[in-house]
Parts: sequence; C-alpha cells; structure tokens
Amino acid sequence: MEKTYMEDYAVGEVLVSPARTITESDIHAFASLTGDWHPIHTDVEFAKQTPFGERIAHGMLTLCVGSALMFRLGQYVSLPKTFIAFYGMDSVRFVNPVKIGDTIRCEVEITALEEKDAKRGVIVSKNMIKNQRGQDVCVYTTRALVGRKPA
Amino acid sequence: MEKTYMEDYAVGEVLVSPARTITESDIHAFASLTGDWHPIHTDVEFAKQTPFGERIAHGMLTLCVGSALMFRLGQYVSLPKTFIAFYGMDSVRFVNPVKIGDTIRCEVEITALEEKDAKRGVIVSKNMIKNQRGQDVCVYTTRALVGRKPA
Amino acid sequence: MEKTYMEDYAVGEVLVSPARTITESDIHAFASLTGDWHPIHTDVEFAKQTPFGERIAHGMLTLCVGSALMFRLGQYVSLPKTFIAFYGMDSVRFVNPVKIGDTIRCEVEITALEEKDAKRGVIVSKNMIKNQRGQDVCVYTTRALVGRKPA
Amino acid sequence: MEKTYMEDYAVGEVLVSPARTITESDIHAFASLTGDWHPIHTDVEFAKQTPFGERIAHGMLTLCVGSALMFRLGQYVSLPKTFIAFYGMDSVRFVNPVKIGDTIRCEVEITALEEKDAKRGVIVSKNMIKNQRGQDVCVYTTRALVGRKPA
Amino acid sequence: MEKTYMEDYAVGEVLVSPARTITESDIHAFASLTGDWHPIHTDVEFAKQTPFGERIAHGMLTLCVGSALMFRLGQYVSLPKTFIAFYGMDSVRFVNPVKIGDTIRCEVEITALEEKDAKRGVIVSKNMIKNQRGQDVCVYTTRALVGRKPA
Amino acid sequence: MEKTYMEDYAVGEVLVSPARTITESDIHAFASLTGDWHPIHTDVEFAKQTPFGERIAHGMLTLCVGSALMFRLGQYVSLPKTFIAFYGMDSVRFVNPVKIGDTIRCEVEITALEEKDAKRGVIVSKNMIKNQRGQDVCVYTTRALVGRKPA
Repeated sequence: MEKTYMEDYAVGEVLVSPARTITESDIHAFASLTGDWHPIHTDVEFAKQTPFGERIAHGMLTLCVGSALMFRLGQYVSLPKTFIAFYGMDSVRFVNPVKIGDTIRCEVEITALEEKDAKRGVIVSKNMIKNQRGQDVCVYTTRALVGRKPA
Repeated sequence: MEKTYMEDYAVGEVLVSPARTITESDIHAFASLTGDWHPIHTDVEFAKQTPFGERIAHGMLTLCVGSALMFRLGQYVSLPKTFIAFYGMDSVRFVNPVKIGDTIRCEVEITALEEKDAKRGVIVSKNMIKNQRGQDVCVYTTRALVGRKPA
Repeated sequence: MEKTYMEDYAVGEVLVSPARTITESDIHAFASLTGDWHPIHTDVEFAKQTPFGERIAHGMLTLCVGSALMFRLGQYVSLPKTFIAFYGMDSVRFVNPVKIGDTIRCEVEITALEEKDAKRGVIVSKNMIKNQRGQDVCVYTTRALVGRKPA
Repeated sequence: MEKTYMEDYAVGEVLVSPARTITESDIHAFASLTGDWHPIHTDVEFAKQTPFGERIAHGMLTLCVGSALMFRLGQYVSLPKTFIAFYGMDSVRFVNPVKIGDTIRCEVEITALEEKDAKRGVIVSKNMIKNQRGQDVCVYTTRALVGRKPA
Repeated sequence: MEKTYMEDYAVGEVLVSPARTITESDIHAFASLTGDWHPIHTDVEFAKQTPFGERIAHGMLTLCVGSALMFRLGQYVSLPKTFIAFYGMDSVRFVNPVKIGDTIRCEVEITALEEKDAKRGVIVSKNMIKNQRGQDVCVYTTRALVGRKPA
Repeated sequence: MEKTYMEDYAVGEVLVSPARTITESDIHAFASLTGDWHPIHTDVEFAKQTPFGERIAHGMLTLCVGSALMFRLGQYVSLPKTFIAFYGMDSVRFVNPVKIGDTIRCEVEITALEEKDAKRGVIVSKNMIKNQRGQDVCVYTTRALVGRKPA
C-alpha cells in the first residue's frame, strides 16, 4: 500500500484513517503548545455559560490531530515517498464541535492530480474529519506537492 | 484595547502579535501531539537529503502556533469577548519553510465584517505569519463567528 | 491598556486575570517537569487517606499557573514593555488546597511603586490567586524590576 | 540508605518503591512520545469492543514508569553511585492489564551479585510491578553494571 | 501490507521501520514522564565525568521509542488487526549508547509463530534497534499475542 | 535517611540535592504549562537586545525545578512521611539569571523547627538554588507543615 509518486493515486480513491479519542489531555497539550488558553477550551465555569455547555476542543486541534491520523495508515500512504511540501488548504470549515470523549477519524478523497512540471505534481484531496456518530466536524481541501513518476 | 463585538473592529485595521522562536522542542511537541513524525521534520539524516538540507517545522505547526500568537495581545483583542466559534480558513498557503531557530510573528488585517443575523457576525481577516526576515511563511484568510453590538 | 513604564501603574490599581480550570493534566505536567511526584498529588490511594481525601495540586503549580494568568491580559499589561527581571516574592502563603476541577484566577493590586534609580523602578503588588468560589488559595507579594519613564 | 558499590547490596534484599496512579495523561504522554497510538490505548470506541472493555495502558508504559518508581527511593538507592549502564532485562512478562486509575508500585528483589572484573560487577534483580490490589502486572529480571568496592 | 492474523507473517520475514533522531527533547520527555532524572541523562556537568563524556539517552527510552517506530509502517503491519496484548520481551540488551543527535530505526525479524489455541497465537521476533551507523544499540526478542486465521 | 517527623530534623542540618541542567526543553515546558511566553524567555531576536543577550529561564521555573530537586534525595528526606502541606515561602529573590545549559542544584539549611500544636509543626528552612559555578540564582525561606513525633 506504500506509494511513491503522484501517479500512484487515483481520482476518486478514498483513504480512511484509524480513530482517536480526543481527551482533556489533548486540549491541555494543544493549549500548552500554542498558548491559546481561550476559556471556551480551558475554563469549565466559563464553558458552562456557552451554547455548548462544556469545554470544546480548539478547531485547530481537531484539524491538526485529525489530519495527522492519515499518517497512521503508514508513512507513505496518504503522502508518497516523494512528498516535498504541504502546499496548502482551502475552504477549511469547522462544522460541528468536538467535545472531550469524542472519537475522530479522517476520510480523504482524492479529487484531482495536477501536473506542475515534469518532475512534480500536486495531489488535491477533500478531507472530512468525522466523529464517532459519522458527523463531519471539520472539512477542507488540501494540496500536497509531491514527485512524479519518471516517464 | 479589549474588544467585545464585531463592531469594535474596523475594516483595514491591522493587529501585530508578539513573536516566538520555533525550537526543536516545538517540533517535538507537535509531532508528539499529532503523531506526525514525518522524517522531514524529525530525522536529521533524511532531512540532509532534502532540498532544505535540514529538518523543517510542520506547516500545520507554523499555522497553529503562529495564529495563536494573536492571543497574546490579550484575551479579547484579536477575538472579542463575544467570540462563539472559529468558523473556518480559506486559501491557506505555506509559502516558505520555517527552520529551527526562526522567529515567527502574525499580522492580521481585518478585511471584512459580515452580518449574519441581528445577534451574530463574522470577522474576516487576512493573516500573514512572517519570519524574522519579514518573509511570509504562511498566509490565509480566516473567519470567526462573534456577537454583534446590541442595537 | 498596554503599559510601558513603572509610571503607567497607579497604587491601588487592581488587575484581574482570566481564569483556568486546574486539570489532572496540569498536575501531571507539573510533576513531570519538576520531578515532584509526591503521592499527595499523584497517588489516588495515598490521597484517600489524607485530610483532603483526594489528590490536590502542588502549591507551586497553583502559584506558577495562577501568577502567569496575568500574562493573558496582554503581554504588556501586568508587566510593562520595559520589564527587566522578576525580582522576588514575599509572604507566599498557600491558604487553601486546589483540587482537580477547581478554576483559578489571579487578582493583582498595585501596592507600591519604588524608585530604584533614574532609569529603573520596582512595581510591588499584592497577589491573590482565588478559586471559583472566590476563596483565596495562594497569596503573596511580588516585586518586578522595570524601566522608568524618561524625565 | 545511599549505596555506592555492588557490595552495598545483599542477595535477598527487597526494595519497595512509592506508588503512582496511572492516568489518562500518562497514556497520552506515552503515546505522544513514542508514536504508539494503537487504538487499544487511545480509542474509546475500539477499546469497548476488546476483552478489556476499556482503554488499557501500553505494556511498555507500565514497564518504564513502574521501573522508574525505584528512582524515588533516592538517587543512589536502587542504583548505586557507581552505576555505569543499564545492562539488560530478561523474561519481561506483562501478566495483567493496567487500567486508567490503577495505582502501581515496584518491588525489587536482589537475586544475584555477579563479579565482572576487579572494578565492575552486575546487580541482578527480580522486579515485580504490582497494582493497588497486590497483583503483578509486569515482572522481569534486570541487570545493571555498577562499580565494585575497592579491595 | 496490512496484516490480520498470525498466519499473515512468515518466519524469516524482516520488517524495517522509518527512523527518528533522538533529541534533547526526547530525553526531557522521557525523564519527565518516568521521573528518572538520573544525572547521566540530565546533568551536563556530571555526564562530562563519565566514560561517555556527555549525556546519553535512557536505555528504556531507546527501547520504547525504537520499538514503537514499527508502528509507523502502518497500524496493522508489525502488529496485526487481531492484536490482543504485548506478551513480553526476552534477552533485552543495551549494547551501545545512544547520544543526542543519533538517529535510530528498528529492524524486526520474525523468528517463530507459535500456536496457543485454535483462536490465538504468538508472534515471536528478534528486534534490533540500530543507529545511523548501522550499529545495534538495543536488541531483544518480543512476543505478541494475536488472533489466528479461522480454519 | 528517611524521616518521619519534625523531630527527625535538626536546626543547622544542610541537605544538598542532585543537579540538573536547564535546557531549552525546560523553558518550553514551563512556558507551555503556564502560558508565560514572555519574549525574554522564548524569542531569540528579542533576547539579543536585552542586557542578558540571550534567552533566560523564567525565575519561577528555576524556583519550581530547583526546589523539587530536593525530592530526589528520596521521597521522605527533605519532607518527612508526615508532610501535610507546603505552607509558604518568604523572601524569594532571583539573584542571578539562569541561562540554557546552566546546571542547578538546591541546598537547604534547616533554620527553625516550630511547634504548632501537639501533633503538628513547621519546618523552616533557608533554600539556596545554585548554578554550576556555585553562585546563588534563587534564594528563599520556606515553611512546611508536618507531623510531630508522638510524645
């Protein structure tokens, strides 16, 4: 299942990651690393007064941890051996909150394979981070610069 | 400088965050939290063979840490007291690598203030994470759902 | 609200920080960093036998996290732009335990502004870390060496 | 109670460590450090379907944290001042699961003192990591290379 | 390359993990988690006086991080989908020190496949954690309890 | 060397801890836990412009890590088995900066043993955290509430 070049992916192909439960430790680690201790994530009393009624995960935590779950399919599965750089994301939307105890996974659908030049191409994909009830929590498209198969 | 409502921002306003040096500890913490130990970030021998010649920070690390630097202007400066949810990002582009020892800051320009309904609005901004040489390393637009000023 | 010099503070001025819930993750992180795994903080069976009946936070954890909450008012609010060094603390007292789930904030009252020389002064303050019930948990006075306003 | 040389131990001597409760934070920290996010440790939904019915600690986490508890008897108690290297382990067996909230301690019985040469020897011990009910969770023998008492 | 049952492995098969550079952050994280701050790992002045001349990684850190590198081949490669428990290790030997900046990988050779009953078996393997110069740093055999292929 | 009661200490007794090198990882961990990312600790470019010329450790980091080094003499050495609570500190002074790579230890001199009632007493001590050159970096007195020896 290892992949080397852009050409090892097919448009329409879907990759599904393993899952991971988002814990209080995750929120603590993300707030710690980034310095974003917004009370909606880290103050129980404040969070009780919000529409969510409890602390929710940072959207960016969901995005980072959720997207990285793809890495667990194997080092060269969602990104090929010739991966050069993570090029960008578009239309990132946080469509549902993630609460402590929710279990997320990531589904990636390859939507385009773009030739950049003879040696490099871009893998475009639609990414859906979902919770244990199958609801999307974060969706976005992503672009990765990778090597192309020698002619 | 604290802000409460969408109306406390002006289109064209620019906010500049404090800066932080990206360390090996940051890369270790981000790889640890997300599980993304791609060798371009964590394997010195592998990284020597890449065009960068050394380990580089995860693009998502730059994005998360860089965007959260705004939080240090004060809890209710880049996001107002009535912040409800981080709505989304568009056109996220990783335009330059961040190496260990680079110092990043974030500049946010308010580009639009959108009314959603009588009580809620969306603050749209253009975000530029820059290094110590003033080069953009990551740029994107972002959308935050916040409360509106009572009429 | 940003402050630059000692002269930007007034005796009697009170600053109130945002709040943060102390979690099991905080105790784990503090024990990890310091190596202080005393069973009153980290052994559930031991803690059951103490007067508290459960694990309590390290006093020093409360002090460090509680005092740093002031930083969230903005980088140059509780300490001015010309901050030179954290000079010292006096009469630090741990007057009530902090249990997992308690939410703490910090209140700082400026009690004296001492001239050291023409360029430097010391901001003296009384600090009260309080829990969600408004009880003091840790109180102390602190001294910060900062720059003075040019004449 | 500090020890300097191999000769400061006696065959049959038993050392008992303090105890520590294994928390969700421990599992998070171990998965983070090692990259082992196997769902039996980190996915609540997956773990429900296993014979354990819930997440269990990594065996290696139990081994590392459990064995290091000996260090808390004092820096030079379970390993003497002349400690050179941790030589190896034999017959490591994970005989019972450790669940979140279990409290473990380590018991070490000195089983042999082997002379290597005039200056160095090996302390051989049988190690039993036990839970709060006194059940073995991990057992193994270990070998440490240490200095010998000058003749 | 995903594997489900004991029968999906062959005696003599060799699996090679990706590599990771051991950093000062790794030693800090391991000392933090376990509480083992032995000066040979964490005190530069002490370490200068040892035969190594500098701080070395904990043997158990090398073992934990090194063995977990196999996980990066994909969640169900070195351990199959039917993995039940990590059974044990034998003859663990720390044969060379790991210094800060060394890059380790793990090589696993399947040496036996033992039937336990109709439904469960044990995968026995010889594990060699190697540095960037190809030297063994830690070797051991390991035993994993897994499901068997239905007849 | 284990101690149980206040009476197991003598006025004038001096305890000396093991040492630990303060690393960039320590500063990262402390900033992460507390949220204090002041640029004097975490921004290389800013720190170059200060009198120190480089990043220095948080005073509170030195205090927390330094004081906890006493714990490594054994769980019941610097604090006895009957330890109840860390009562307070007086005259905490940060007298010299700690830079990355400095190695600190703690020296504690018992200065008074105060009877509180028949069952409890307070151990008063003068604490000196010193660097590898023997210079004081942080000094303070501390008070610990402990049990008394039954008559």
